[in-house]
Amino acid sequence: NYLLHLPVPMFILSADGQRRVDYVLTYPVKKPGGGRSSRQSVQLLAENASLPMADLEGGALNGHEDHKAFRREEFEGKLRDMGLELEKEEVVSLYLSLIFFLTHSTPLHPQVKTVQIMQLISVDCLLQLLYEEWANYSVFYKYQPIGLVRKYFGEKIGLYFAWLGLYTQMLIPASVVGVIVFLYGCATVDDNIPSMEICHPKNNITMCPLCDRVCSYWKLSTACGTARASHLFDNPTTVFFSIFMALWAAMFMEHWKRRQMRLNYEWDLTGFEEEEDHPRAEYEFKVMQKSLRKDKKSHHKVSTMEKLTCRDRLPAYMANIVMMLLMIGVTFAIVFGVILYRISTKAALHMSSSSITRNHVQLTVKTTAAIINLVVILILDEVYGAVARWLTVLEIPKTDKSFEERLIFKTFILKFFNAFTPIIYIAFFRGRLVGRPGSYLYVFESYRMEECAHGGCLMELCIQLSITMLGKQLIQNNLFEIGIPKLKKLIRFIRSKQGAFQEEERQKKLQRYETDHFLEPFAGLTPEYMEMIIQFGFVTLFVASFPLAPLFALLNNIIEIRLDAKKFVTELRRPVAARAKDIGIWYNILKGVAKVAVIINAFVISFTSDFIPRMVYQYTYSPDGSMHGFVNHTLSYFNVSHFQEVTVSLFFCLYRYKDYREPPWSATPYEISKEFWTVLAVRLAFVIVFQNIVMLMSDIVDWLIPDIPKDISLQIHKEKILLVDHFMKEEQRKIHILESRVSTGSKEVFSRSNNNITTMTHSCSQLHTKCTKASNASNDVFIVQS
Amino acid sequence: NYLLHLPVPMFILSADGQRRVDYVLTYPVKKPGGGRSSRQSVQLLAENASLPMADLEGGALNGHEDHKAFRREEFEGKLRDMGLELEKEEVVSLYLSLIFFLTHSTPLHPQVKTVQIMQLISVDCLLQLLYEEWANYSVFYKYQPIGLVRKYFGEKIGLYFAWLGLYTQMLIPASVVGVIVFLYGCATVDDNIPSMEICHPKNNITMCPLCDRVCSYWKLSTACGTARASHLFDNPTTVFFSIFMALWAAMFMEHWKRRQMRLNYEWDLTGFEEEEDHPRAEYEFKVMQKSLRKDKKSHHKVSTMEKLTCRDRLPAYMANIVMMLLMIGVTFAIVFGVILYRISTKAALHMSSSSITRNHVQLTVKTTAAIINLVVILILDEVYGAVARWLTVLEIPKTDKSFEERLIFKTFILKFFNAFTPIIYIAFFRGRLVGRPGSYLYVFESYRMEECAHGGCLMELCIQLSITMLGKQLIQNNLFEIGIPKLKKLIRFIRSKQGAFQEEERQKKLQRYETDHFLEPFAGLTPEYMEMIIQFGFVTLFVASFPLAPLFALLNNIIEIRLDAKKFVTELRRPVAARAKDIGIWYNILKGVAKVAVIINAFVISFTSDFIPRMVYQYTYSPDGSMHGFVNHTLSYFNVSHFQEVTVSLFFCLYRYKDYREPPWSATPYEISKEFWTVLAVRLAFVIVFQNIVMLMSDIVDWLIPDIPKDISLQIHKEKILLVDHFMKEEQRKIHILESRVSTGSKEVFSRSNNNITTMTHSCSQLHTKCTKASNASNDVFIVQS
Repeated sequence: NYLLHLPVPMFILSADGQRRVDYVLTYPVKKPGGGRSSRQSVQLLAENASLPMADLEGGALNGHEDHKAFRREEFEGKLRDMGLELEKEEVVSLYLSLIFFLTHSTPLHPQVKTVQIMQLISVDCLLQLLYEEWANYSVFYKYQPIGLVRKYFGEKIGLYFAWLGLYTQMLIPASVVGVIVFLYGCATVDDNIPSMEICHPKNNITMCPLCDRVCSYWKLSTACGTARASHLFDNPTTVFFSIFMALWAAMFMEHWKRRQMRLNYEWDLTGFEEEEDHPRAEYEFKVMQKSLRKDKKSHHKVSTMEKLTCRDRLPAYMANIVMMLLMIGVTFAIVFGVILYRISTKAALHMSSSSITRNHVQLTVKTTAAIINLVVILILDEVYGAVARWLTVLEIPKTDKSFEERLIFKTFILKFFNAFTPIIYIAFFRGRLVGRPGSYLYVFESYRMEECAHGGCLMELCIQLSITMLGKQLIQNNLFEIGIPKLKKLIRFIRSKQGAFQEEERQKKLQRYETDHFLEPFAGLTPEYMEMIIQFGFVTLFVASFPLAPLFALLNNIIEIRLDAKKFVTELRRPVAARAKDIGIWYNILKGVAKVAVIINAFVISFTSDFIPRMVYQYTYSPDGSMHGFVNHTLSYFNVSHFQEVTVSLFFCLYRYKDYREPPWSATPYEISKEFWTVLAVRLAFVIVFQNIVMLMSDIVDWLIPDIPKDISLQIHKEKILLVDHFMKEEQRKIHILESRVSTGSKEVFSRSNNNITTMTHSCSQLHTKCTKASNASNDVFIVQS
Repeated sequence: NYLLHLPVPMFILSADGQRRVDYVLTYPVKKPGGGRSSRQSVQLLAENASLPMADLEGGALNGHEDHKAFRREEFEGKLRDMGLELEKEEVVSLYLSLIFFLTHSTPLHPQVKTVQIMQLISVDCLLQLLYEEWANYSVFYKYQPIGLVRKYFGEKIGLYFAWLGLYTQMLIPASVVGVIVFLYGCATVDDNIPSMEICHPKNNITMCPLCDRVCSYWKLSTACGTARASHLFDNPTTVFFSIFMALWAAMFMEHWKRRQMRLNYEWDLTGFEEEEDHPRAEYEFKVMQKSLRKDKKSHHKVSTMEKLTCRDRLPAYMANIVMMLLMIGVTFAIVFGVILYRISTKAALHMSSSSITRNHVQLTVKTTAAIINLVVILILDEVYGAVARWLTVLEIPKTDKSFEERLIFKTFILKFFNAFTPIIYIAFFRGRLVGRPGSYLYVFESYRMEECAHGGCLMELCIQLSITMLGKQLIQNNLFEIGIPKLKKLIRFIRSKQGAFQEEERQKKLQRYETDHFLEPFAGLTPEYMEMIIQFGFVTLFVASFPLAPLFALLNNIIEIRLDAKKFVTELRRPVAARAKDIGIWYNILKGVAKVAVIINAFVISFTSDFIPRMVYQYTYSPDGSMHGFVNHTLSYFNVSHFQEVTVSLFFCLYRYKDYREPPWSATPYEISKEFWTVLAVRLAFVIVFQNIVMLMSDIVDWLIPDIPKDISLQIHKEKILLVDHFMKEEQRKIHILESRVSTGSKEVFSRSNNNITTMTHSCSQLHTKCTKASNASNDVFIVQS
C-alpha cells in the first residue's frame, strides 16, 4: 500500500506560487518494459489556459520521451471510451497537448476511476460539456453532472445545484402522493354526504344574505358546486397528507445532510474550515473616518485599532427596525386594501344590471383579487430585495460573510411576509371576524367583513395558493429570469451599436475571460436560494389545503434547474469560485420553515377545513353515526324580524347562517352555543395532538437516519489507516537513506534532526484523513492505493 | 514563535513502547548564563510509579547537572506557591526525585500556567490530593478539581463530574427563583380571594360526600386549610416559573455544550475520535456456536465470518419487548393497587369510631399512600435495573458500547415509568374520572374513584412529588450509596476474619493497585447518571407544581458530588481510564426530558392547576372583573332527591360538587355545561400557546449562545497557524542540514527523498490543530509559544 506524492505540484507551486494545478487525469497504460497492464500514468493539466506549454513540459517531464506520443494517443482514445464525447476535437487536442506524463509505476486507487469519469479537461471544454450535459432542457430526466459544475463554478455553486437536485428528486414522491390524495378526493366527491345534502334538489334551506342592502337571501343549493369542489381538498386524506409532508420535510433535511457529507467527502472538504474573512472596504473606510474624527478632536494620534461599536451602529439598527416594521406594515396594509377591494367590488357587482355579471360575482372577485395580490407580491418582492440590501449596507457589517447573512435574514423575513400574509389572512382570519346576522362587524362603518363561501375557506385558500404559487413561479422565476437578462443584453447591444462591427470582430479573437466580461456580473446565490425557500414554504406550509403544491413545485424545478444552468453557463460572467462546506444559513431557514409548517398545517386542518366539525358531528351529535344532517347542524337560525334594518320582504321568518349560535327561541338568543365551544375544544386538542405526534415522528426520523452515510464513514476510516501506514513507511525509508548516506558530520546535530523527523513521523501518523484532504485542498494530490 | 518537541517522549516510547509519559510540569527558572528570567525548564514525570529512577534520569538527563539541585528546590517551592499544599512532604519529595530537567531555552506558552495549576504529580500523591481537595464535605462550596479527577480516573469519569458540577451550579439560580416564587405564594396567601371565600365564616356551602355510604355531606369551610396551602403552589407566578425553568433547561444544555467543548480543548480531545470496539466475548462465543452448528449441518467447513442476524436475535428481541411491556404493566398495576388502597383505607378510616382518626383521614391516607409508592419505586428500581441488564445480555450486542447504550435505554425507560407513573396519574387522571353525584364511576363495582381535595389536585401532586423526590434522594442515593458499600466491606471483613491479621500486615506493604483489589469493583457510570437524569426529570417535568424541586435537588447534589467523590476515591477500585469526548447518549436523554418537560408543564398549568378557570372566570364571567364569586362559579348543584340511594337525612335539597355541569333545574340536568367547554377550550389554547412560545424561546436561546466559546475557537485558530509555521520552519531547517551534509551519493534518489520531505512539509503544514491534539493524545507534548 503506497501513497504517491507528485513532485510536480510542488514544483509549480514553488516556481511562482501563482499558477494552480487543476486536475489529475489517469489512465491505464501498458508498461513499456514489463508486460503487465496497470494503471500507471498520471497527467496534470494546468487550469490557466494561457500557461505556456513549454513551461510545464520543460519543468517536469522526465524520461520515457519516446513513449509519449503513443501514450497520448491511447489516452485520448481511452477518454473517448470512458464516455467523454469529444466533438470539439480541436479544442480538446489543444489542451491535450498540455498534458505531460509522469512515470510513477504505482497501481492506482480505485477512486481514480471516479476521477476519470469526471472528465475534467479544460475550461472551454468544460464549459462545452456543461452546456451540453447540463444546461440543456433535453437532459431534464438525468442527474446533474455535479462534479463538473463544482469544477467550473466552485463548491458553493456546486452545493446549490446539488441541493436543488436533491430537492427536486425528493419532490417526486411528494407529488405522487399529493396527486393520489387529490384523485382520492375526485373519486369520492359523489359519496360525500355533506355536499350531496347541499346539492339535493329537495334541500330547501334559505340563507342570510352575504352582503348588506344589495344582496338578497339565497338558497343553499346554489352553493352545490363550491361544496363539491371543496371536497377535493377537504377530505380525511388531507390529514394523512399533512403528516406525510411533515415527515417528508424531515426526511429531506436528513437526506440533504447525508448528501452534503458525501459531497464533502468526494470534494475533499472534510478537513476544510472556513477562514476568517477580511473586513469589507466599506467597513474599513468607516473605521478610518471614525479614527480621523477622533484624531481631530483629541489633536494627537490614536491607535488605528478602532472598531465600530454598537453605539456607532445604533442609528443603522434603529433604521433597520423601523424600516422592517414599516415594510411589514405596508404588506399588511396592502392585504387589507385587497380585502376592501373585494368587499366593495362584490357589492358593486351585485348591483350590476347584467345577470351574467351577477352570477359570476364570486369567481370574478376572487380571481381578480388573487391576481392583484400576485402583482403586488411581485412588485413588492423587488422593492423588498432592494430595501433589504440598502438596510444591510447601512449597517456596515464587518465581513462579507456577515453582510450576506444579514442580507439573507432580512430579505427572507420581508419576502416571507410578503408571500404568505394574504394566504395566512384567508386561512385563519377570513370568515372568523364576521359577527352574526343582526350585528355584523363593519370596517370603516360601511364595509361588512367578508364571509367564506359555503364549504369553508379552504377552497378560497386553495385558489389563492395556486394563483400565487403558479404566478410567482411562472412570472418571477421563469419570465423574469429569462427575460431580464435578454433585455439587458439587448440594451447593451443597442448602446454599443456604433462600434458593433469592431466589437464582434474583436469578440472572435478574445479569450474566454474577455468575452465573459461582456456578460452580466454574477450577483450571488441569494436570489436563487430565496426563490426555492419560498417555494419550499408553499410546498410545506399550507400543503393541507393544496395537495397539488408539490407537483407544481416539481414541474417548476425541472425547468428551473436547466434554466439556472443556462443562466450560469451563458448569461452570467463566470463567478469567482468559492469554497463552502454547507449551504450555511439556508439550512437553518429550511429547518425553521419545516418546523413552522407543522403548526400551520395543524391549524389549517383543524380551523380552516371542516374536518373537525365533521368528526365531532359524526361521533357525538349524529343520531345514527353517519354524516347525514351535518349541514343542518352547522347552520344556526336567525329570525329576520330581529334584523336591524328590514329591507327585504319577509317570506320566511327564519333564515340560516353558518355558525354555532343559539337559536332565536333560546333563553340567550344568538349567543355562542355549547356546540361552538365543544368543536373549538376538539379543534385545539387536535392541534396539540397533531403537533406533538408529528414532532415526535420527525425526531424519530432524524434519529433513525444517520447523518454520515455508512460507506463514507467506513471509507474515511480506511483512508486514515492507510495514511498512517504510508507516513510510517515513508519516514522509515527516509531515515534509512539518510543513515546510509550521511557519513561525516557531528552526530549530535544529526541525531537531533533524526529525532525531529521521527517525532514528525509520529505526530503525522496520528493525523487522520485531514492530511489527504488538506493537501488536496491545495491542489496537491495524494493518490491512495487500496 | 516556536514549537518545542520534546525528544524524551519519543525516547521513552521507542525504548519499550509500554511506559507512558504522563505530564509536563514547567516552572520559571533563572537562566544560569544569561540574566533574564524566563520559563525555561520542562519536567517530565512518568506515570508508572514503579519505573526505576535510574532509567529515566540516565536516559534523558543531559547537561546542567550542577544546577539541578538548586532548580529542584526552587521548583518545589514554586509548586507550593502555586497552591499545591504539599502536606505529604515525604511522598511528594519521593516523586520529585523522579523529576528530571530538560534545558530547552524556549520561553513557554501562557497555557503552561494552567498546566502548573493542574499539579499532577504521582498516583498516590494525586489520590491524596483528590481525597483532600475533592472527596471532602468541607470543600463543598469550591469548584471541583476536574483536571485532577480526569488525571486520575480518565476523561469519561472526569466528564461525569464536570457535568454534575455544572448541573449543580446551574441549579443555584433555579432554586433561588423557585424559593422566590414559593415565598411570593406565602406572602400573598392572605390576599387570595378564592381561599378567603372558602375560609370565610359566613360561607355556608354544603358539599356532596366524598365517599359512598360512610361519608356524610360536608361544609366547604372545612377545606380552608387545603385551599390556603394550595395557593402556595398554584398562583400566577407558577406560569412564569415554568417558562423560566424551560429556558433554564435550554440554557443548561447550551452551557454544557460549551463546557464540554472547553474541556475537550483543555484535555486535548478535539482530534480524538472513538475507535471501533472489539466484539464482546459473549458475542464471539455465540457466533462461534452458530458457525459450529452450521459446520455440523453442512458437514463441511464454512468461513468463520459469521454474523448474528436479526433472525438469530429475534427470540431475544421478542423477550425484550414482552418483558418491557410486562414491567411497565407491573408499574401500572402497582399504581392502580395504591389507588385501591387509598380508596378502601379512606372508607375504612371514615368508619372508625375514633374522632381523631376521622379528622386526619385525608392526611393519613395521602401520606401512607405516598410512602407505599416510594417504597415500591425503590424496590422496583432495583428489580428493573437487574431486568434491564438481563434483557441486554439476552440480546448479545456486538460491542461494549452498543451494550451500554442498549442497557441505558432500557433502564431509563423502566425507571422513568417507575418514578413518574404515580405522579402522572395524580397530575392528569385523578379527579377526572369521577363521574358525578348520582352516577359515580366505580371500579370493581364497589370502589368509587377518588376525587381531589378542594383546591385541585395540585396540592396532592405536590405532596407526592416531594415525598418521592426527597425519599428517593435520601434513601436511594445517600443511604444506599453509603450503606451498601460499607455493608459489603463488613461482610468481606467478617468472611476473612480468620486471616485478618496477616491480611492487615500484608496490606501495609502492598502497592496501591494491590490494596485496590480489596475494594468494590467499578460498575460503570450508568447508575450515577441515571440517578441524576431522574432527578433532572423531577426538577423540570413537574416544576409548575413544585417550585421547590430545584432547591431540594441542589441540596442533594452538593452532598452527592462529595459522596460520589468519596465513593470513587475510597470505596471503589480505580476504574480503567476511558476516553470520551462527550457524555454520549445521556445528552440526548436530557434533551428529550427537557422537551417532554415543556408539554407536561403546559398540561400541569392548564389542567392540574386552577389557573385557567380563574382566568376565564375573571375575564368573562365575573360581574365586576374580580375573583369574587369564583368558588361559587366552579361548583355545580345537585338535587339530593336524584341520588340513587338516599341514606342521609335531607336537610337541604341542593348540595354542591366541583364540576361544570348543568343544574338540576335546567332542561338537560347534570349534562356537561357550556362553561366546561369554554374552560376546556381555553385550557387547550393555553397549552398550544405555552408550548410554542417556550419552544421558540428555547430555540432562540440555542441560537444566541454559540456552541464553541469565543476564546477557545480563537485559541484553536491561533494554534493552527503556529503549527503550520513551525512545520514549515522545521522542515526548511532539515532540508538545509541535509543539503549541507550529503556530499556524495546519487543525486536522483536524494532529490526524490528531498522532494518527498518537501511534499510532506507542505502537506503537514496544511494540517490543522489535529496534529498537536493527535500527538498529545499519545502523551507526546508539543508546547506552543505565543
